[in-house]
Amino acid sequence: MNFSTALRAAWTERNSLLCVGLDPDPAKFPAHLAGRPDAIFEFCTAIVDATANLVCSFKPQIAYFAARRGEDQLERLIAHIHAKHPGIPVILDAKRGDIGSTAEQYAIEAFERFKADAVTVNPYMGHDSVEPWLAWKDKGVILLCRTSNPGGSDLQFLDIGGEKLYERVARLVANEWNVGGQCALVVGATFPAEIARVRQIVGDLPLLVPGIGAQGGDIEATVGAGKTADGGGLMINSSRAILYAGKGEDFAAAARRVAQETRDAINRWR
Amino acid sequence: MNFSTALRAAWTERNSLLCVGLDPDPAKFPAHLAGRPDAIFEFCTAIVDATANLVCSFKPQIAYFAARRGEDQLERLIAHIHAKHPGIPVILDAKRGDIGSTAEQYAIEAFERFKADAVTVNPYMGHDSVEPWLAWKDKGVILLCRTSNPGGSDLQFLDIGGEKLYERVARLVANEWNVGGQCALVVGATFPAEIARVRQIVGDLPLLVPGIGAQGGDIEATVGAGKTADGGGLMINSSRAILYAGKGEDFAAAARRVAQETRDAINRWR
Repeated sequence: MNFSTALRAAWTERNSLLCVGLDPDPAKFPAHLAGRPDAIFEFCTAIVDATANLVCSFKPQIAYFAARRGEDQLERLIAHIHAKHPGIPVILDAKRGDIGSTAEQYAIEAFERFKADAVTVNPYMGHDSVEPWLAWKDKGVILLCRTSNPGGSDLQFLDIGGEKLYERVARLVANEWNVGGQCALVVGATFPAEIARVRQIVGDLPLLVPGIGAQGGDIEATVGAGKTADGGGLMINSSRAILYAGKGEDFAAAARRVAQETRDAINRWR
Repeated sequence: MNFSTALRAAWTERNSLLCVGLDPDPAKFPAHLAGRPDAIFEFCTAIVDATANLVCSFKPQIAYFAARRGEDQLERLIAHIHAKHPGIPVILDAKRGDIGSTAEQYAIEAFERFKADAVTVNPYMGHDSVEPWLAWKDKGVILLCRTSNPGGSDLQFLDIGGEKLYERVARLVANEWNVGGQCALVVGATFPAEIARVRQIVGDLPLLVPGIGAQGGDIEATVGAGKTADGGGLMINSSRAILYAGKGEDFAAAARRVAQETRDAINRWR
């Protein structure tokens, strides 16, 4: 699968800009899954199967797997998505960033071991730390730009001779790093004016937008600020609000209801 | 073990500022290890046992383990260091950086699962992305500041109203984030003038300095620029130049020779 092509197809053919984030926290799982050795895999595949026809992508967060020796469950989860729901790109949320020789190893982890279609990457170490990811021509490389957390402003909002650091990152990625058309940017939904600013800088580059739902971002403002002329351009991520919508054995149905509401709310403003 | 205390004890009692980086690349291993299922663990423990009395710390790079399903070997390697060489702090080079709830998971991975004494962290997402690491009071949190790779300048060298971004990071960490005395900074050996500048900003804060050896940094200039008044303050990292000093069955002895030369060359300028 080519990530950029698959993503664009998902936006139109699947009629969704919703990305479901898979941040599996066993402490929040329904009681009937407690203590099951593959609880993470079972929880996530139930969510995936219930929401697959409502999404443009899935985004597993690797930290939740790695914290509890769950790498094998992550491998099986991504294999399950590819086998059962072909065409839906999987973004590995890993936010890696290291020198070239180490980035090569991380790329093997993300793309060869886990078989993700795209990965999130931290831009702080600059271009040669991103190049090894871009060498995988079919894969997507999604750079952190303006993040949705409170401390995001500490560095990203600093003034660099008339523009903010996150604007410089957006410009660097769009104008210099995106040679192969593989790049995208993370821009938090908590700052719609900044989504609009990034959209202005980067043209049609895809934006991954976390912060809807548990983090409080507003859907109308996000879509209005970030959509491209053809009503695409966005992967709007929701994790906790969907994953933990229900607390009982019907948690997957509850997740589907919230995912559908979110997808539809997004589509209202496309 | 308290990381800061153990590190200071290692500088004086072990008389070394050398950190040996464990970046195990099986393609570079001696032929007799080829195909062995635990080759990474065997290679790294041989290096560790041969160099332990020459170092102030070991720094395994997690990407090399994760790229080949080697997490169990990393767990066993760190357990081996703690059991056989007590008092030597282990820095997990992971360069993580994410929102608070995710950083909590990464901290469990680094400190509870792998039992590292310190971790490298990326500052791009700001203070609340670092707080969950700092909640582990005995652990070290080593923030990227000025990295040794060519692209390090892309963002870190940008001018922020009269200072560079890496200087701002140094100031933020030293003056605001280092409340518990747990913080340190990564500053590349390829830029001695910038090591001196960071030292000027941060007082006695420990600096982890990669770039000696394969990356070409100069030892005299590095130590002169970075040492504190008492001849400490630095973890000078060498990885490839030590790990792959020999190609035969005596690779660990060859590694020890280079480690000793490097340790002694550093001590000449303390």
